Amino acid sequence: MIEESKATLVNVDLGDRSYPIIIGRNLIKRAGEEISARLPGSKTVIITDEAVAKFHLKTLEDSFKASGVEFNTLIVPSGEQTKRFEIFERLCDDILALRLERGDAVVALGGGVVGDLSGFVAGVVRRGMKFVQIPTTLLAQVDSSVGGKTGINSRHGKNLLGVFNQPALVLADTSVLDTLSPRDFRSGYAEVAKYGLINDPDFFYWLEQNWEGIFSGGPEREEAIAHSCRAKAAVVAADEFESGNRALLNLGHTFGHSLEGAVAYETERLVHGEGVSIGMVLAHEFSEQMGLCPPEDTKRVIEHLKTVGLPTRVDQIPGQLPPIGTFMDLIAQDKKVSRGQLTFVLTKGIGTSYVDKTVNAEPLRAFLEEKLGK
Amino acid sequence: MIEESKATLVNVDLGDRSYPIIIGRNLIKRAGEEISARLPGSKTVIITDEAVAKFHLKTLEDSFKASGVEFNTLIVPSGEQTKRFEIFERLCDDILALRLERGDAVVALGGGVVGDLSGFVAGVVRRGMKFVQIPTTLLAQVDSSVGGKTGINSRHGKNLLGVFNQPALVLADTSVLDTLSPRDFRSGYAEVAKYGLINDPDFFYWLEQNWEGIFSGGPEREEAIAHSCRAKAAVVAADEFESGNRALLNLGHTFGHSLEGAVAYETERLVHGEGVSIGMVLAHEFSEQMGLCPPEDTKRVIEHLKTVGLPTRVDQIPGQLPPIGTFMDLIAQDKKVSRGQLTFVLTKGIGTSYVDKTVNAEPLRAFLEEKLGK
Repeated sequence: MIEESKATLVNVDLGDRSYPIIIGRNLIKRAGEEISARLPGSKTVIITDEAVAKFHLKTLEDSFKASGVEFNTLIVPSGEQTKRFEIFERLCDDILALRLERGDAVVALGGGVVGDLSGFVAGVVRRGMKFVQIPTTLLAQVDSSVGGKTGINSRHGKNLLGVFNQPALVLADTSVLDTLSPRDFRSGYAEVAKYGLINDPDFFYWLEQNWEGIFSGGPEREEAIAHSCRAKAAVVAADEFESGNRALLNLGHTFGHSLEGAVAYETERLVHGEGVSIGMVLAHEFSEQMGLCPPEDTKRVIEHLKTVGLPTRVDQIPGQLPPIGTFMDLIAQDKKVSRGQLTFVLTKGIGTSYVDKTVNAEPLRAFLEEKLGK
Repeated sequence: MIEESKATLVNVDLGDRSYPIIIGRNLIKRAGEEISARLPGSKTVIITDEAVAKFHLKTLEDSFKASGVEFNTLIVPSGEQTKRFEIFERLCDDILALRLERGDAVVALGGGVVGDLSGFVAGVVRRGMKFVQIPTTLLAQVDSSVGGKTGINSRHGKNLLGVFNQPALVLADTSVLDTLSPRDFRSGYAEVAKYGLINDPDFFYWLEQNWEGIFSGGPEREEAIAHSCRAKAAVVAADEFESGNRALLNLGHTFGHSLEGAVAYETERLVHGEGVSIGMVLAHEFSEQMGLCPPEDTKRVIEHLKTVGLPTRVDQIPGQLPPIGTFMDLIAQDKKVSRGQLTFVLTKGIGTSYVDKTVNAEPLRAFLEEKLGK
């Protein structure tokens, strides 16, 4: 197992579905060792995408060989379009053809797309195989690899088909983040900042002071990732199947998803974390307009997101946006709708967000119209 | 709710996934009432097949209308071929197009095919909607509607893709069994007899005395169904995700599935319960040959299954069967394989079955060769 004790361990406490997240540098090199120790005797199938395969697949396969972990590898195209039914079906079929059993493991090596897709596949083949996540983006390390949400997109929207499927193990290798583009790194950082804004003002203030170390790969990076995983794990442990407060994790996301939908998920125009960044600002502004959030808090949030290079305004999205009606439709089709009433995460200030299920369409439309400059 | 108190209630005790099975005559007529009381405010989508729709859909829809339960209806073709990826995808898509939410319900009206398929769909749309089962065959009432196993077939085998998804409610209307063909009724009866053979000799002896009342629709029918549901519920409650003793429910099924596979699931030649009937006899004969089961118990099992009109020998299956190698492959690809060793349910006599994970391929092959008359 981890001998050098240079890694940080975060336990996600979900009763008999509990699992460890190990965070540290060069963990992919030790993946074979970890898996053979924690899932003795399990065969594996690695699922990764073309882009990640180029950088990290050989390291992982070498590690499996060295530890005697049996594996096959399935490579999918890179990009959000991969989270679709056709590829989901093909992966299920390929794994069955390999004759893997329930006790064998699907190992997801990649970002959120690979993790979400692989987790769904692992959740349904033989009604559930073991699942190991090796997230290779900051976004996946602090967000999608914690909490067990898996899924694919439908033509009706993102992540509308999937299962809750907790992994057996997550290995967050922080050194792979060195190969991320600055834009992708910032995108993940938006989710890190979110944990401060939800319910942990001190973490937000710490980020204001320490963000440079996080971006440059100092020890602050591992600390920030571990803190984020712990924060998410705590929310998930309290509400695994999203019947209540887990919705807090959607701070900025209802707005963010509608922006992603508005640009048809064209990542040249907007990546997820950028949508979340603008969405979090909108959530603070909307809350401020309703007399909930002090203006100085909104300002401080905008200031920090700007400082790290994240967009904070709708007009920073290149190209034309659709009319207000499209946004209202996208918001209504978001999973966070319950019995026709919109569920929004609003805030009383930095670190004091809450779930509001009584938001009416009219003031929301008026607010968005103003923001969209119509 | 149930006012006339003529129904029997069986509770499946699975912590926060517990649910009631209500068993009685004319329950479809009261389905709207039950659903509006137990899932207040939920919209519904009814999934049924062409054959069942003809007999029972209007009754169900009228009941929903009378109780103000909102519904849409999706009709799939009848037959095992419906449990495939393409139809699974189309149903998911259709439900999303209806804009149903997580709190809304998928209502499965039909036999095992409709139940398994609908349960899988309900388990993945928005990562899980509510699910109500209205099983219309004896097989579905005593077996597939209890325990939460859902799924579809793959070209690699039956039920290889799916999820564990417990329903919120099961309504087993025993009067619909009046429209079943005698062959389909017998097929379900094989599973009823199985519960006696697993661990309840007294129930088996009771069946020997009372089977005629069950077949003719006397009060013994409801009693037998309730007893079977309770028996299965107890096994499932002890091992929801099939990590151990739940495998007991597979008594006769490893042989049975291989026979179904051998005839390519052509139901003109063999239906599921017939495969289980022959499979249970084989399990007793194989156990007898290993010195585990007294010959008089094997004989008694054969006698009773014969009496009710079920097949008990491989040579009763019309047409030619494939060579022994095909059977061994089918058995090896059955989900009940773990780390290469075959998991079989063997028996020490009527009502004393147990899970044996040490069965070797060689004696099994010799036994089957003899039975196949090679």
